[in-house]
Amino acid sequence: MHAYRTHNCAALSKADVGQSVRLSGWIHRKRDHGGVLFVDLRDHYGITQVVADEDSPALATLESLRVESVVTIDGEVKARSPETVNAGLPTGEIEVFARAVTVQSRADELPLPVAGEQEYPEDIRLKYRFVDLRRDRVHANIMLRNQVIQSLRRRMTEQGFSEFQTPILGASSPEGARDYLVPSRLHPGRFYALPQAPQMFKQLLMVAGFDRYFQIAPCFRDEDLRADRSPEFYQLDFEMSFVTQDDVFDAIEPVLAGVFEEFGRGKSVTPAGEFPRIPYAEAMLKYGSDKPDLRNPIEITDVSAHFEKSGFGIFEKIVGGGGVVRAIPAPGTNEKSRKFFDEMNDWARREGYSGLGYVTRKQGEFGGPIAKNHGPVEMAKLYDELGLGENDGLFFAAGKEKEAARLAGAARARVGEQLGLIEADCFRFCWIVDFPMFEYDEEQKKIDFSHNPFSMPQGEMEALKNSDPLEIKAWQYDIVCNGYELSSGAIRNHRPDIMYKAFEIAGYSREEVDANFSGMIEAFKLGAPPHGGSAPGIDRIVMLLADEPNIREVIAFPMNQRAQDLMMGAPSVVSPRQLRELNIRLVEQAKETAASANDAEKTDTGLAGN
Amino acid sequence: MHAYRTHNCAALSKADVGQSVRLSGWIHRKRDHGGVLFVDLRDHYGITQVVADEDSPALATLESLRVESVVTIDGEVKARSPETVNAGLPTGEIEVFARAVTVQSRADELPLPVAGEQEYPEDIRLKYRFVDLRRDRVHANIMLRNQVIQSLRRRMTEQGFSEFQTPILGASSPEGARDYLVPSRLHPGRFYALPQAPQMFKQLLMVAGFDRYFQIAPCFRDEDLRADRSPEFYQLDFEMSFVTQDDVFDAIEPVLAGVFEEFGRGKSVTPAGEFPRIPYAEAMLKYGSDKPDLRNPIEITDVSAHFEKSGFGIFEKIVGGGGVVRAIPAPGTNEKSRKFFDEMNDWARREGYSGLGYVTRKQGEFGGPIAKNHGPVEMAKLYDELGLGENDGLFFAAGKEKEAARLAGAARARVGEQLGLIEADCFRFCWIVDFPMFEYDEEQKKIDFSHNPFSMPQGEMEALKNSDPLEIKAWQYDIVCNGYELSSGAIRNHRPDIMYKAFEIAGYSREEVDANFSGMIEAFKLGAPPHGGSAPGIDRIVMLLADEPNIREVIAFPMNQRAQDLMMGAPSVVSPRQLRELNIRLVEQAKETAASANDAEKTDTGLAGN
Repeated sequence: MHAYRTHNCAALSKADVGQSVRLSGWIHRKRDHGGVLFVDLRDHYGITQVVADEDSPALATLESLRVESVVTIDGEVKARSPETVNAGLPTGEIEVFARAVTVQSRADELPLPVAGEQEYPEDIRLKYRFVDLRRDRVHANIMLRNQVIQSLRRRMTEQGFSEFQTPILGASSPEGARDYLVPSRLHPGRFYALPQAPQMFKQLLMVAGFDRYFQIAPCFRDEDLRADRSPEFYQLDFEMSFVTQDDVFDAIEPVLAGVFEEFGRGKSVTPAGEFPRIPYAEAMLKYGSDKPDLRNPIEITDVSAHFEKSGFGIFEKIVGGGGVVRAIPAPGTNEKSRKFFDEMNDWARREGYSGLGYVTRKQGEFGGPIAKNHGPVEMAKLYDELGLGENDGLFFAAGKEKEAARLAGAARARVGEQLGLIEADCFRFCWIVDFPMFEYDEEQKKIDFSHNPFSMPQGEMEALKNSDPLEIKAWQYDIVCNGYELSSGAIRNHRPDIMYKAFEIAGYSREEVDANFSGMIEAFKLGAPPHGGSAPGIDRIVMLLADEPNIREVIAFPMNQRAQDLMMGAPSVVSPRQLRELNIRLVEQAKETAASANDAEKTDTGLAGN
Repeated sequence: MHAYRTHNCAALSKADVGQSVRLSGWIHRKRDHGGVLFVDLRDHYGITQVVADEDSPALATLESLRVESVVTIDGEVKARSPETVNAGLPTGEIEVFARAVTVQSRADELPLPVAGEQEYPEDIRLKYRFVDLRRDRVHANIMLRNQVIQSLRRRMTEQGFSEFQTPILGASSPEGARDYLVPSRLHPGRFYALPQAPQMFKQLLMVAGFDRYFQIAPCFRDEDLRADRSPEFYQLDFEMSFVTQDDVFDAIEPVLAGVFEEFGRGKSVTPAGEFPRIPYAEAMLKYGSDKPDLRNPIEITDVSAHFEKSGFGIFEKIVGGGGVVRAIPAPGTNEKSRKFFDEMNDWARREGYSGLGYVTRKQGEFGGPIAKNHGPVEMAKLYDELGLGENDGLFFAAGKEKEAARLAGAARARVGEQLGLIEADCFRFCWIVDFPMFEYDEEQKKIDFSHNPFSMPQGEMEALKNSDPLEIKAWQYDIVCNGYELSSGAIRNHRPDIMYKAFEIAGYSREEVDANFSGMIEAFKLGAPPHGGSAPGIDRIVMLLADEPNIREVIAFPMNQRAQDLMMGAPSVVSPRQLRELNIRLVEQAKETAASANDAEKTDTGLAGN
């Protein structure tokens, strides 16, 4: 017989009744029914009920052990009586009568409970993550993450992609977010940087001829943290050669839709091949956002024309001054009190906007100051145009276009939520496409790049030479799911001549381009294929699938929001010898910063001793 | 028709003759046969021959392009005439007659050639790695690496292992090799460290209840570099719960044997389930090494007893003084001249040993001073015992046991090579087991740990209490293939009581253990399963399979031996602002170190501009 187990704790069923078995696991729960002890024995796979009564030599030992102790049980499989069968448990038809017990590990008192669902303070959970990870929900999340990544890998491989590892010790880049730096011992005064993304490397893999690359890539950003950010995160980084934007979409839609269908627990998923493609300008108009949540049925309409001449002076003035008015329907709000509408307005002011106008409508009757001033005939015309009915309210966001769009987008989200209009149990994907290549920088009074200078402009050199720069779109695209941006991507500009021209339009000389981007441009001069890709965020995908609002719930050993590993005590003080070897010295801290260091000190009681 | 290609460059065959096709790729080679231009068009998948003659509008453009330019060819598939068929090429029966060409990327003059097999200086290759990677051998190595890792993942998953990512930003540990450190911006004066291995995390995953973990894990060591070392390397890190040493072997042997069979190009592989298990003591005796190359048939024998009383004074003295004499057969050396034997002796002296004695034998006749002094009768007895024949030579390594074993091992390797005895075309695996738990430290005159203090001693507490410590073995094991150690592993000590006792034997008090290892011990007090694992080196596995002597040949973007990325210019100088944010300052360098920094400066001309 095996030293520890003949079966795992999810394996036994009625078919095994009568067998002598050996099980190992953690004591999940103990219930003492007066001389009969029931133990839920738990391992990675499941739970089996173990029973010991006064006939069992194991009783005394089992009674003496705290929960979470690890034991090996020798016993006999017995059928449970019909009334004690647990249909919720795969092993619920049997129990194991304990003949002997071996204690593998005696547990002390626990810092947090494992059985049960109760919430627990995050700092305790993270400090004792190895206990926290035993809890059902976290355990399930980490297994889900594993399965999602495995499925992503399989699907990418099936699409003909190959996985390559790119360096983690790389070069610091002056742009983008803040790098984590690594001092070099062999080259005093010099530093490696951890990659914010393997962008350069994946493009160079294409230049090197590797056609279809992907990687479950660790990325690092030294930024201030939020619930959905971690200093260390993973993306499904991919890049393809000899492709158009359509090819990229065709390659990745089946991967994403497939994974969401596989792990979406029956929620509906936008089918591969049917991800809507929404031009950036349309998204900003209809959804007030470039990451629209398509589960929300509300669509925004520009109604500026209606208010060019209106009894409602504020809107008239805004439109007259080049601003816009956007309408956000609030369908079926005839039963809503005035308070509902006023609170929306208050919310908009709290968010820093000048306010959110509204019109109420009950059985065809318009209400509110805008309706009054605009007049019922004009209002009815507007409603007809928007296809609204006699019990639908309407909010208005007015102002300069950008701001009004943003407010309208936020109002759309809020109205949708408050009216319970968000479609449940679905993952709605879309692409945002046709991002503008350039934009007018009001501050610097010049044309500048709108997003990524290294994306290929639509129309390529021809467009750069002959079109209004502000009309030129880029082959750049975002994947959005349920209002979350999963990734940005682009067809890259692989042509030095087009790159110089694009930079020239944005006001940079050839010399400036060479000084800053010579490396990539020189590589492109040695034979570069057209290429493009994207990099959906893995942690975000798992968060959506696990329905978790916090990235730390889907990472096995996450840092806290202050970028500390409370369990291992990182970051920690290092020895003077280590600093000497690295040719660096600490800068003396002012008092208040020292206090923060002291604060961190407290966390060192975890596993830092090792 | 697709913008870039209807087929890749390995797809077309005789069945496609007559079709209009579009291909894209790099101009691999050009051959001008007087008005007819042959172009080998290359992509990731293969090569297709493109033809242009004076009827082709593509001729002039193709003639004007340098090799490695990227083009799209529109043309027609034609059958090659029988005498021009290239049987070595999957597309060798056809060629594509070019009707049109689109230049996607015009290549400048190349820093190194792509076509052909010629060697090229490594610094140029690494600086232009994106060109170097197009070369057949490197391209094949990187694809092999990808396939090996994919196969390892599949095999581990089939064995019930799940992959989890452990943190890359971790805590510095005072032991082991030198850490790469990462200064924390949020916690001034504190540092993260990159993991040398996820050892603590994988053990904590077991404590957390995840039964079978693996990871293709990036690891980092800031050590001085050799051909088979890289600052950043990957291991197949794995750990299992509720297992004995046999279970670990049973789990990993099919994975390794399977991968070597799959990618070993027909070489024979030790079958899974049949990896010999060689106790450490036996390995040191028979092979003079704990990483024996079993392709070498030579076995070493201890012949000390023969020289206790011998006419050969040196050996007699050595044995009398507690030393040993080890015999290394050199079979079939009757045709070898005296020079062969003397050169072995010279080699041993160059290596710092006192020398390598020998006996020659030709048609039964012994030769050399040892034979002369020891006498032919005694020599014949020795030969009979060793099973040696009348034309076999014999080398002797004599001295203190450790040194003699090491010399005998080196001589065994050298003799095996020089006599051409190393079995070709095979991968011979073995386990080295039963490592001693403790050893006597001659310098400190005390018992200390021999290898890993955290391995479980065989016999557990019982052995620690009742056995001679120097007789206690550990549940610790190495995997060796063809003389290379692929990894160390162990059944871990998960019992605080046994750990305190083991440290007590090595002279450490409970307080000292708590001060240094409290974290792990405290974790083990909250319910820890028996567990064990190992971590075979991925780069080494790929090196063996690709038959490459240098780790850089199996890494897509390796650093050079001075830990520099010549392509990206890492490590590099960073801005004063970055250092300020990290609260560190550079230490002024002495002159000679500054010179080395200048040297590094030169490398910044790569892609560092980005």
